[in-house]
Amino acid sequence: MNIKLSEIAKIVNAEISGDENIIINNFSSIDESEQGDLTFITDSKYEKYFASCKASAIIVNEKFNKSRNDITYLTVKNPQIAFANILSKYFPFKASLSGIDTSAFIDSSAKIGQNVSVGKNVIISEGCKIGDNTVILHNTVIMQNVEVGNDCIVYPNVTIREGCKLGNRVILHSGVVIGSDGFGYYTDENNVYHKIPQIGIVIIGDDVEIGSNTTIDRAALGATIIGNGTKIDNLVQIAHNVKIGKNTVLSSQVGVSGSTKIGNNCILAGQVGLAGHLEIVDNVILLAKSGIPKTISKPGMYFGYPAKPHREALRLEAHLRNFQNYVDKLKQLEEKISELEDKSGIKKT
Amino acid sequence: MNIKLSEIAKIVNAEISGDENIIINNFSSIDESEQGDLTFITDSKYEKYFASCKASAIIVNEKFNKSRNDITYLTVKNPQIAFANILSKYFPFKASLSGIDTSAFIDSSAKIGQNVSVGKNVIISEGCKIGDNTVILHNTVIMQNVEVGNDCIVYPNVTIREGCKLGNRVILHSGVVIGSDGFGYYTDENNVYHKIPQIGIVIIGDDVEIGSNTTIDRAALGATIIGNGTKIDNLVQIAHNVKIGKNTVLSSQVGVSGSTKIGNNCILAGQVGLAGHLEIVDNVILLAKSGIPKTISKPGMYFGYPAKPHREALRLEAHLRNFQNYVDKLKQLEEKISELEDKSGIKKT
Amino acid sequence: MNIKLSEIAKIVNAEISGDENIIINNFSSIDESEQGDLTFITDSKYEKYFASCKASAIIVNEKFNKSRNDITYLTVKNPQIAFANILSKYFPFKASLSGIDTSAFIDSSAKIGQNVSVGKNVIISEGCKIGDNTVILHNTVIMQNVEVGNDCIVYPNVTIREGCKLGNRVILHSGVVIGSDGFGYYTDENNVYHKIPQIGIVIIGDDVEIGSNTTIDRAALGATIIGNGTKIDNLVQIAHNVKIGKNTVLSSQVGVSGSTKIGNNCILAGQVGLAGHLEIVDNVILLAKSGIPKTISKPGMYFGYPAKPHREALRLEAHLRNFQNYVDKLKQLEEKISELEDKSGIKKT
Repeated sequence: MNIKLSEIAKIVNAEISGDENIIINNFSSIDESEQGDLTFITDSKYEKYFASCKASAIIVNEKFNKSRNDITYLTVKNPQIAFANILSKYFPFKASLSGIDTSAFIDSSAKIGQNVSVGKNVIISEGCKIGDNTVILHNTVIMQNVEVGNDCIVYPNVTIREGCKLGNRVILHSGVVIGSDGFGYYTDENNVYHKIPQIGIVIIGDDVEIGSNTTIDRAALGATIIGNGTKIDNLVQIAHNVKIGKNTVLSSQVGVSGSTKIGNNCILAGQVGLAGHLEIVDNVILLAKSGIPKTISKPGMYFGYPAKPHREALRLEAHLRNFQNYVDKLKQLEEKISELEDKSGIKKT
Repeated sequence: MNIKLSEIAKIVNAEISGDENIIINNFSSIDESEQGDLTFITDSKYEKYFASCKASAIIVNEKFNKSRNDITYLTVKNPQIAFANILSKYFPFKASLSGIDTSAFIDSSAKIGQNVSVGKNVIISEGCKIGDNTVILHNTVIMQNVEVGNDCIVYPNVTIREGCKLGNRVILHSGVVIGSDGFGYYTDENNVYHKIPQIGIVIIGDDVEIGSNTTIDRAALGATIIGNGTKIDNLVQIAHNVKIGKNTVLSSQVGVSGSTKIGNNCILAGQVGLAGHLEIVDNVILLAKSGIPKTISKPGMYFGYPAKPHREALRLEAHLRNFQNYVDKLKQLEEKISELEDKSGIKKT
Repeated sequence: MNIKLSEIAKIVNAEISGDENIIINNFSSIDESEQGDLTFITDSKYEKYFASCKASAIIVNEKFNKSRNDITYLTVKNPQIAFANILSKYFPFKASLSGIDTSAFIDSSAKIGQNVSVGKNVIISEGCKIGDNTVILHNTVIMQNVEVGNDCIVYPNVTIREGCKLGNRVILHSGVVIGSDGFGYYTDENNVYHKIPQIGIVIIGDDVEIGSNTTIDRAALGATIIGNGTKIDNLVQIAHNVKIGKNTVLSSQVGVSGSTKIGNNCILAGQVGLAGHLEIVDNVILLAKSGIPKTISKPGMYFGYPAKPHREALRLEAHLRNFQNYVDKLKQLEEKISELEDKSGIKKT
C-alpha cells in the first residue's frame, strides 16, 4: 500500500498541515503506529501516546494542540469518523468469490438476485429468495423459504432455519444460528417436559450486524424481531418472541429471555441478562453484567444484580465498600451506650 | 391453511361454544391474533388482551369467563397443552429430505437404520450407528464410532466427536458440539500447562433437546452424562465429567464446571454458573445469573452471587435497598449518644 | 486393551508394589473404576473412594498409605502427571484421515507442508500456508492468507478468517471462529451506527488450545494477540485488539472486552467479564463470575461484582451474611438510647 497523503485528505476534506506529499503505507492506532503510518486521535486518554507516536501523519480535530512539527496533521471535525471513512474507501469488503461456486447447492425453486456470490458447499433450499449483490460464504446452510435482502454478507458456517427473513445490508458472522427452535415446553403431571412446536420465524431488519456464534431463536408463534440498524455482538442469545427496536446495541454474551421487548437506541453492555416478558423502553443503558428482573419504563442507566438505577447502584456500592466502617461504628456506639447505661444505672440486658 | 374448527376441536376433545363451522387460517398468540386465527389463553396476565383480541376462536379452560359472544370458545382442561397438541398435529417436523443425499459421505462401516435421512455434505465416519427414522441435516459432522438412536433430529452444522452416544428422540440444534475435549491440564514447575488426554465420551439419554451452539465436553475418563428428558437451551457449557439427571432444565448461557452432578427435576435459569465438583440434589431451582460455589443438599429455590436460599436472598436484597436508611439511622443514633454523653458528662472520644 | 502393568510402569519409571504381571484393560477415575482398571489418586478429597475402589492397580505418591494389599501400587512423584503421560502414550491424537481428502478444496496458491491431513469439504483459500503434520478436520473453512503452523489440530466446522496467523501445536475445537470482525461502530447525529472496517488480524502463539464455539475477533487495526501456551475454554469471547500473555487460562464463558490486556500466568475462572481498555498484570486470579471494571495492577486473587481483592470480598460477604444481625443490633441500640433519653430527660425526636 502506497498512497499519497493528499489523496487520502481529499476523501474526508481534511485540511493538511505539513507535507502533503508523504506516502502512507499503513493505517494504525496511535499506540502501535510506525513510520509511514497514518493514525488518528480522538479520545483524550490516547493523548499520552502522541509524544512518542512514530506515525508520519495523524488525523486530529480543530482543538488539537499541534505541538510536534515532525508529523503531518490532517484536521477534520471528527477524526474517528474520518478515519473510518478512509478505511472504508481503501478496505471495502471483498468476498473473493465470483458468482456461484459449482460445489454450492441451490434448489431450482430458489430465486437468486443479480450479482450474487455463493461460496463452496453452500446450501440454499427450496423457496429461498436471495437479494442482489448478496454474498453467502462457504459451508453456510440456508433452509427452506428463507428470504435474504440485497447487499447482505453471510460468513462461513452460518445456519438460517426455515422461513426466516433478513432485510438489506445484513451481516451475519460465522457460526450464527438464526431461527433455531425456541425453548418451549409444557410439563405433564409426572414433571416430564413436552416440546411445544415453534412455528414462528425470525425477522431481521435492514443494516443489522450479528456477531459470531450468536443465536436467535424463532418465535413459538409470530416472529422474533430485530429492528433496523441494531448491532449484536458475538455469543449473544435472543430467545423466542423477543422484539428489539432500532439502533440498539447488544454487546457480547448478552442474554435476552423469551418475549422480552427492548426499545430503540438502547445499549446493553457485555454479559447483561434479561428475564422474560419484560419491556425495556427506548434509550436505556444497561451496564455490564447487570441482571434485569423487571420491566424498565424510564430511560437512563442501570447497573447491578439485580439492576438498579445507576446513581442508586453507585450509592449502594459505596456503602458496601464502607461496610466495615459501619460495623466498627455500630460496635463503638454499643460500647458507648453500655457506658452510659452503667452511669445511668440501667441494667444491661 | 384452511381447517374447520370442529376438526381441530376433535383432536383435543374440546367442547365448542359458538360456530363450529368457522375456518381457521392460522395459529397465533392472543396479543397478536388476527381474524381467522385460533388462539388460547392460560395465564391471567394475558387476560388484558382478551377484550381486543381479533381471533375467531380461542381455547380456554372451564373457569374462563366467556364474556364475548363474537368469538368461538373451545373449552378444555389445559389450554396450553391442548394448543401444543394441535400444533404438533398440524406442524409435525418435516426434514424436507428424502433418503441419503448423494453429497453426504457415509463410511462403509457405518450402520444406518431404516428410513434415515441424511442431508448434503454430512459426514458419518467409521463405525457409527444411526437409528431408524433419524434425520441428520446438512453439513453436520459425525466422527468415528458415534451412536445415534432412533427418531433423532440433528440440525445443520453440528459436530459430534468420536465415541459419543445419543439416545432416542434426541434433538441437537445447529452449531452444537458434543464431545469436544474437556479443559484439563497439569502444570509443570515452570507454570507451563500440559494437556491431559480426554479419553472419555458423552452419553445423552432419550428425549433430550440441546439448543444451538451449546457445547458438551467429553469426559477425561468415563462419561459426561445428560439424563433422559433433560432440556438444554442455547449457548450452554457443560464441562467434562458433569452428570445431569432426568427432566432437568438448563436455560441459555448456563455454565456447569467439571465433575459437577445435578439431580433430577432441577431448573437452572439463564446465565447461572456452577463451580466444579459440586452436587446439586433433585428439585433445586437456581434463579437467573446465580453463582453456585458449593454443593446444594436441600431442594428449593436459590438466588444470588454467591447463591443463598431464596428467602435469605430476598431478605438480603431488602436490606441492601434499605442501606441508606440504616446509615442515616446510625448517624442519628451517634448524634443522640453524643448528646447523652454531653449531658451525662462522659468525655467524647 | 490388554497391557501388562510392568510395561505401563516403565513409561513413568514407577516403582511397583504388588503383582507386576496383571493386565490392565482400562484407565479410569478412582470413583468409577472397575476390575482390570488402572487408576490414580492425588487429591486428598478422593481418598474416601480408596477403600471401595475396584481398580486392579493405582498410581500413588510416596506418602500414600498403602493400606490395602488386594491392589497393586505404582509409586511415582506426581500421580496426576504420571497418569497423563500414560494416557498420552496409549491415546495419542489420531485424525483418522490420510492425506488430503478429494472433497477438500485447496487453492492452488496455498502452500501445504509435509504430512498434512485435510478432511472432507474443507476449504483452504488463496495464499494460505499450512505447516507440517497439521490436521484440518471436515467442513472447516480457512479464508485467504491464513497461516497455520506445524502440528496443529483444527476440528470440524471451524472458521478462520482472512490473514490470521496461528503458531505451532495450536488446537482449535469445533465451532471456533477466529478473526470475525470486531464490534466497532461510530454513531452519527441521528444515533445511527456505522461500521468501522476491522482491518487487523488475530495472532495466536504456540501451544494455544481454544475450546469449542469460542470467538476471537480480529483487531480494528493491528492484531488481537493470544500468547504462547495460553489455554482458552469453550464459549469464550475475546474482543478486538485484546492482548493476552503467556500461559494464561480463560475458563468457559469468559468475556474480554476490546483492547484489554491480560498478563502472563493469569487464571480467569468461568463467566468472568472484563471491561474494555483495562490492563491486568501477570499472576492475577479472577474468581468465577467476577466483573472487572478497572485495571488490576497488583497480582493476587480477586472476586465479586464489581471485583475486589479476595480478602476484601470475603469480608464483605461475611458482613452481608450477617446483615440481619447488624440491623437487629441497630434496633436494639435505638431502644436503649430511647430508654436513656427517657431517663435523662432528653425529649425524643
